[in-house]
Amino acid sequence: MKELKEKILKEGKICPNNIVKVDSFLNHQIDVSFMRKIGEEFKRIFENSGVNKILTIESSGIAIACYAAEAFNCRLVFAKKGKSLNQAPDFYESKVYSYTKQIEYPISVSKEFLHKEDKVLVVDDFLANGAALNGLIDIVNASGATLVGCGTVIEKGFQPGGKILRDKGIRVESLAIIESIDEVNQKIEFRD
Amino acid sequence: MKELKEKILKEGKICPNNIVKVDSFLNHQIDVSFMRKIGEEFKRIFENSGVNKILTIESSGIAIACYAAEAFNCRLVFAKKGKSLNQAPDFYESKVYSYTKQIEYPISVSKEFLHKEDKVLVVDDFLANGAALNGLIDIVNASGATLVGCGTVIEKGFQPGGKILRDKGIRVESLAIIESIDEVNQKIEFRD
Repeated sequence: MKELKEKILKEGKICPNNIVKVDSFLNHQIDVSFMRKIGEEFKRIFENSGVNKILTIESSGIAIACYAAEAFNCRLVFAKKGKSLNQAPDFYESKVYSYTKQIEYPISVSKEFLHKEDKVLVVDDFLANGAALNGLIDIVNASGATLVGCGTVIEKGFQPGGKILRDKGIRVESLAIIESIDEVNQKIEFRD
Repeated sequence: MKELKEKILKEGKICPNNIVKVDSFLNHQIDVSFMRKIGEEFKRIFENSGVNKILTIESSGIAIACYAAEAFNCRLVFAKKGKSLNQAPDFYESKVYSYTKQIEYPISVSKEFLHKEDKVLVVDDFLANGAALNGLIDIVNASGATLVGCGTVIEKGFQPGGKILRDKGIRVESLAIIESIDEVNQKIEFRD
């Protein structure tokens, strides 16, 4: 998505440890008119796959999921992080390892909002190691719903998450794939 | 907002300790077409007050803030919960006491995204004791921006948050105010 790549180059901040901060439009401040374009792009990509539910994880996935859900004219569900008491048996649960915080945390989705008839598009802001997507896919599988695929806004192509998921046969579409980040020269290269 | 009250009566679940769960459209699964109506209602209410920024707190406020921001044709910022290393001096910080979790947690907003020229509408899903709104108002005040007011979707009128804020002269508009919750008879009464 050309406009996304331009926005990353213009507004993204390259930080140590291969981090690109896009807090000005995606992760802290949100540019809703741009989120609408992202939602429409996911609709275009997954057009004829019968998507009737968007699944994401709090918090940075929610705005993206809203506009994807609007494009597909369906509802979205966001998985909740952290443990609540007495969730099972009413919740599907999985675990996500956070590489930045170096902890594993539980995630959950109420069984009320995910059914075996659902065709689910999983969306998120970033794909790096794929930990969050893997947790969400676990939950889709546990529900018996059909996983249509995963749509992420920015993929770090030099980290393994995308390849591992695609090697499993899962359709993963990222609107921009970063091939390399050069902190010294403040340069980002995208995969074609 | 009549449609909201009807939706609370139809889909809300009354739980112990005066809790009404609206997980089917607001807090877990999100009905985006209804969120759009909520955003437009906040626009109607705060029409001529020059709002140019929406401020909320992750996670349940984000969807509401997206559609409020779209109605006002501005950007939104969501305050982040939890402590990150070395945030100050680049962040405005405050603290929020969670009555459900009985802990106090820090919240923060980057100074990059809130300026003294801004006219800020603070939005959130629930208003009960007002802890989250107070934290967000602290941050608006610290930034020197103008607080136009607070818009909440559901206010628990029998808890003190709304009255305390209004007594301070802050404009607080809630789209539905619950006067009482009767768990035994599964009945909700709204303030007129």
